[in-house]
Amino acid sequence: MESTSAMSTPRTKIKRLPERGSYDTSTIEVILDEGLICHVGFVHDGQPFVIPTIHARVGDTLYLHGSPASRMLRSIRDQPICVTVTLLDGLVLARSHFHSSMNYRSVVALGTGREVTDPAEKMTAFEAVVEHVARGQWDSARRPTNKELKATSIIAMELSEASAKIRTGDPEDDEEDYELDIWAGVIPIFASFGQPIDDERLTPGLTAPDHLTDYER
Amino acid sequence: MESTSAMSTPRTKIKRLPERGSYDTSTIEVILDEGLICHVGFVHDGQPFVIPTIHARVGDTLYLHGSPASRMLRSIRDQPICVTVTLLDGLVLARSHFHSSMNYRSVVALGTGREVTDPAEKMTAFEAVVEHVARGQWDSARRPTNKELKATSIIAMELSEASAKIRTGDPEDDEEDYELDIWAGVIPIFASFGQPIDDERLTPGLTAPDHLTDYER
Repeated sequence: MESTSAMSTPRTKIKRLPERGSYDTSTIEVILDEGLICHVGFVHDGQPFVIPTIHARVGDTLYLHGSPASRMLRSIRDQPICVTVTLLDGLVLARSHFHSSMNYRSVVALGTGREVTDPAEKMTAFEAVVEHVARGQWDSARRPTNKELKATSIIAMELSEASAKIRTGDPEDDEEDYELDIWAGVIPIFASFGQPIDDERLTPGLTAPDHLTDYER
Repeated sequence: MESTSAMSTPRTKIKRLPERGSYDTSTIEVILDEGLICHVGFVHDGQPFVIPTIHARVGDTLYLHGSPASRMLRSIRDQPICVTVTLLDGLVLARSHFHSSMNYRSVVALGTGREVTDPAEKMTAFEAVVEHVARGQWDSARRPTNKELKATSIIAMELSEASAKIRTGDPEDDEEDYELDIWAGVIPIFASFGQPIDDERLTPGLTAPDHLTDYER
């Protein structure tokens, strides 16, 4: 619930609950990096679309991978887009439903989609996306061929206009409600990951590499 | 990876990987109901925004609660919006990075935002949202007063144009890559929830109700 500098513009300023707004660059980066996927918003024929997409950050650049629909690529190239990453941390159950809420960390980043066409930048972005999903994985599987690189869509967005919003801690009930005999508190939410499950056609004798066992973010 | 009837229009038809598209109404409803939150897309001054929001489904109506920004309410009332719910089920690690992917279930629903003003519908929607987050909770905490109801923003969207996209199972590598000595498989992802943590100001002697212990979705 802090509120510091950087990347804030009138469009990304948190209006409703300013105490939950945070504009610190490192806060924004931590959330972007921890989130496994993002939701990309774009406009097509006046209709907004929101599509889940894998992303990765390289410095101040956000890369979006594998457009799930060709519509998306066409609609975000050189167009205004929004990239949102949300991490859920808890259900906040207050004494009143009105004050019940969620603990979360989210980033909303606005920018313009740029199609990555330079093969070197495309390879860098591809590596970043693979490492974003599972650090250490880039060296563990087969790298893309030139043909695969050409068949891959990568969109870049510069991180120049973004804000983070964070809620932590207990419910905040109306003062008189604290006397009610109603339980209140938080149910924590964790992203949890199981142990690697071998592909059915795995070459006998192979085992999952160390960086994939006990996977966590 | 099935593909059946219902709710499909040219705008929601899955174009890129049609075998992953599913338009069965019950499939769509299960995903909407299991997802704790959605991401709402709307357009404001030509700029798309994507905001995480709690939702609930009542029949064919999706209710969106607690606009995190007043900007959102203004921008989705009687305007085209997109509601996307994404459930992540696994990291799909192929022998090639090109074929690496995610297992997931997602719904993209398009519609028009309608501000709920009728007090009875607003109360119904409020209850649905509370029960969506934690079934059994509506009867366990203080219900909204008329004043609180007025201070709450609820947007309704009819579910008439939606599609689900689902990926399950093992990686699908190029045939020649199966001979590589590279591990491949899936790391399962679970949404997991801890036991309820008492509010610091909880009245002594109160314990979390049964429906909140061992919480799962």
